[in-house]
Amino acid sequence: MRQSRLFTKTRREAPADEVSKNAILLTRAGFINKEMAGVYSYLPLGWRVIQNLKRVIAEEMEKLGSREILMSTLQNKGVWEKTDRWDDERVDVWFKSKLKNDTEIGFGWSHEEPIAEMMKSHVKSYNDLPVSVHQFQNKLRNEVRAKSGIMRCREFIMKDMYFFAETEAENLSFYESAIAAYSKVFDRVGLGNITYVTSASGGMFTDKFSHEFQTLCDAGEDYIYVNTERRLALNEEVWNEKTVSELGLKESDFEKKSAVEVGNIFNFGTKKSEDLGLIIQNQSGEKQSVHLSSYGIGVSRLMGTIVEVLSDEKGMIWPKEVAPFRVHLIFLGHDGVLKELADKIYNAMLSENIEVLYDDRDLRAGEKFADADLIGIPTRVVIGGKTVESKMLEVKDRGSDDVLMMTLEHLIEKLNSSTSFDKVQDKSLGTRSY
Amino acid sequence: MRQSRLFTKTRREAPADEVSKNAILLTRAGFINKEMAGVYSYLPLGWRVIQNLKRVIAEEMEKLGSREILMSTLQNKGVWEKTDRWDDERVDVWFKSKLKNDTEIGFGWSHEEPIAEMMKSHVKSYNDLPVSVHQFQNKLRNEVRAKSGIMRCREFIMKDMYFFAETEAENLSFYESAIAAYSKVFDRVGLGNITYVTSASGGMFTDKFSHEFQTLCDAGEDYIYVNTERRLALNEEVWNEKTVSELGLKESDFEKKSAVEVGNIFNFGTKKSEDLGLIIQNQSGEKQSVHLSSYGIGVSRLMGTIVEVLSDEKGMIWPKEVAPFRVHLIFLGHDGVLKELADKIYNAMLSENIEVLYDDRDLRAGEKFADADLIGIPTRVVIGGKTVESKMLEVKDRGSDDVLMMTLEHLIEKLNSSTSFDKVQDKSLGTRSY
Repeated sequence: MRQSRLFTKTRREAPADEVSKNAILLTRAGFINKEMAGVYSYLPLGWRVIQNLKRVIAEEMEKLGSREILMSTLQNKGVWEKTDRWDDERVDVWFKSKLKNDTEIGFGWSHEEPIAEMMKSHVKSYNDLPVSVHQFQNKLRNEVRAKSGIMRCREFIMKDMYFFAETEAENLSFYESAIAAYSKVFDRVGLGNITYVTSASGGMFTDKFSHEFQTLCDAGEDYIYVNTERRLALNEEVWNEKTVSELGLKESDFEKKSAVEVGNIFNFGTKKSEDLGLIIQNQSGEKQSVHLSSYGIGVSRLMGTIVEVLSDEKGMIWPKEVAPFRVHLIFLGHDGVLKELADKIYNAMLSENIEVLYDDRDLRAGEKFADADLIGIPTRVVIGGKTVESKMLEVKDRGSDDVLMMTLEHLIEKLNSSTSFDKVQDKSLGTRSY
Repeated sequence: MRQSRLFTKTRREAPADEVSKNAILLTRAGFINKEMAGVYSYLPLGWRVIQNLKRVIAEEMEKLGSREILMSTLQNKGVWEKTDRWDDERVDVWFKSKLKNDTEIGFGWSHEEPIAEMMKSHVKSYNDLPVSVHQFQNKLRNEVRAKSGIMRCREFIMKDMYFFAETEAENLSFYESAIAAYSKVFDRVGLGNITYVTSASGGMFTDKFSHEFQTLCDAGEDYIYVNTERRLALNEEVWNEKTVSELGLKESDFEKKSAVEVGNIFNFGTKKSEDLGLIIQNQSGEKQSVHLSSYGIGVSRLMGTIVEVLSDEKGMIWPKEVAPFRVHLIFLGHDGVLKELADKIYNAMLSENIEVLYDDRDLRAGEKFADADLIGIPTRVVIGGKTVESKMLEVKDRGSDDVLMMTLEHLIEKLNSSTSFDKVQDKSLGTRSY
């Protein structure tokens, strides 16, 4: 994409009405637009990040055999009354309104109930199970206070997945697979080393239990207790002497840290199915309620978390899999011949399917570099006066100060080989190769 | 995808509460689930169709240079008051609710206002224009009566695009390009020959004018006046002697037909920008309001329209570009060796990136064929007793009665070459080649 045709503009100053780092950087870089407190729109660069996060998550959920669907935002009161979750006294984040004929409706803040209700039309016997479905849905929650930028919103993008099984064993086994898939997701989006599977309630063998995925982050609203060595974490709810001793540890073996909940998984057992009447005939020919577990990832919150933990004083630093573009190609100067060369290199990258943002604007080098640092695309490639004589491009990773000189062919080869671009950061390889 | 792991079930009977053909077929085939009147969820097969429609539309919009974004559902009252479209007397489809602090909010039924408002932060000068943005958004409209299945809903998926320009000439020129892009979309989704660009108001040279894309369809809620020979159409609003004579035709040259509005485009001129204060500095250094035009396609309505016009008494007939899968592979019988062969063929197709639904279920041939006809995947491939000896697959297009025998290699070759699979329907070629 030519940056001259990307309509969003960067700003030097933080917006007056934002305090969180993620909202400040994302707004300054033109990734998001605030519609009201806790409600943001996604502009082209921000939407590309969301699409990449969705792609990574979808790939890992599909590996679990889950199928993508899309449930409605408008919610049927009757379905939620069955589980006693319609009443505002029971669930305090509902947005509600009325149809023209005065029928009360709600706006989806979660989807266990309608999904389980829908399954009643399709799942009648053990033969129809197990089933997993997931969706990427805009949830609406009437939060008293929206804060932390896109990390706690009144409208946000969530991946929610629901697993239906005949037996507790199947449910547990999927639960374990989902933990592994979630870990893979957080690895791929660059948060693996600081994200903990955190026990959140009950033990593994009670009917109802849950885990959270908590990413260490100063801006997080939660506290977790972490044992770094064994990569164990407990949330405040289960933090007590008993749990700790069950793990063969002492309270002093844990450190209290700020964290943000980027994912959660929850085993409902058969409770939800009992309330909703999701009954099947099991292998023994008897009627039974279906086991249900649910699996959430806050997609927009994940984007905010990445900004919070992977940024520096100059701006954002996107991991490759989620970056809005893979390469930021920057043309310096005013020379027509050089501009033609830059256009050629841009087109060569496009024809190699490299996602590239091409800064073809008529601005000073300092402004372009400041914008590139703020936007945070992983690899910066500069075309300047030196390029013509040396036939070398100046290549720098956003997270590193090392500048490498290489030919276009070498750059494309490095970008296309999935294993190797990190090695370009390795100076010894860099200087040996070029 | 293995059909045994696709949880949705087909049904022989029409749902009692549906009268429209699209809702009946889509429900019977397990593509959609009704949440309440005018509100549907999309199950795996239906969601794949929506994703394909979105892909086709996105590709054509991106060719126009448009950038994808996502605006919020929650709407700020203040923005809509500026154009006098907040009041229920003025716009009668608003869903509204309140934040905890009693601030009134709306739920997005359209997005001209917030998009133009957002542009004020980014577009200041003629240098920043032209700009086009588009989104795929769930619109919420409090319709008095929801009918026609997914063709008129209280919640529906829409592609809306907005173009911002300095001059009327640029605006008109984009408007013309968008008409061409829309025609391409309707061609690709199989409705090209029955979809008319329909004049809807004003003439081409008034400040405000609009066009609709109307697909001939008995279930449509609109009437249009069509001159088939010149591929001209007028909607009821502009159907009068004066317009007709301006076209050099008589009223008797037109036929009145039922149609459904699958797309619309509208030129606001500078009116909306004046109301919202979207002002730029133009090339002469003067302040001026921005020209705005908007471009909608009802994505879920388009899906419903395809079902209405491309179906027969057995079920749906999906065009290739939008079908949930390209091939429906059907295994017949109970023989273990044959099943192994079927699995192999399934895996061979997957490794060639052919999207295939594999009916590996333990059901009678008649049930499998009835399901295949109902679901409507373009190409049916049968693996039965004859396959082992002849090494030939039985291949049939959903829209044709001709059955062709061919090897797997030939089938894959035909499916992979973009031009040729239609030719397989040509019997003479079929019999010559195999």
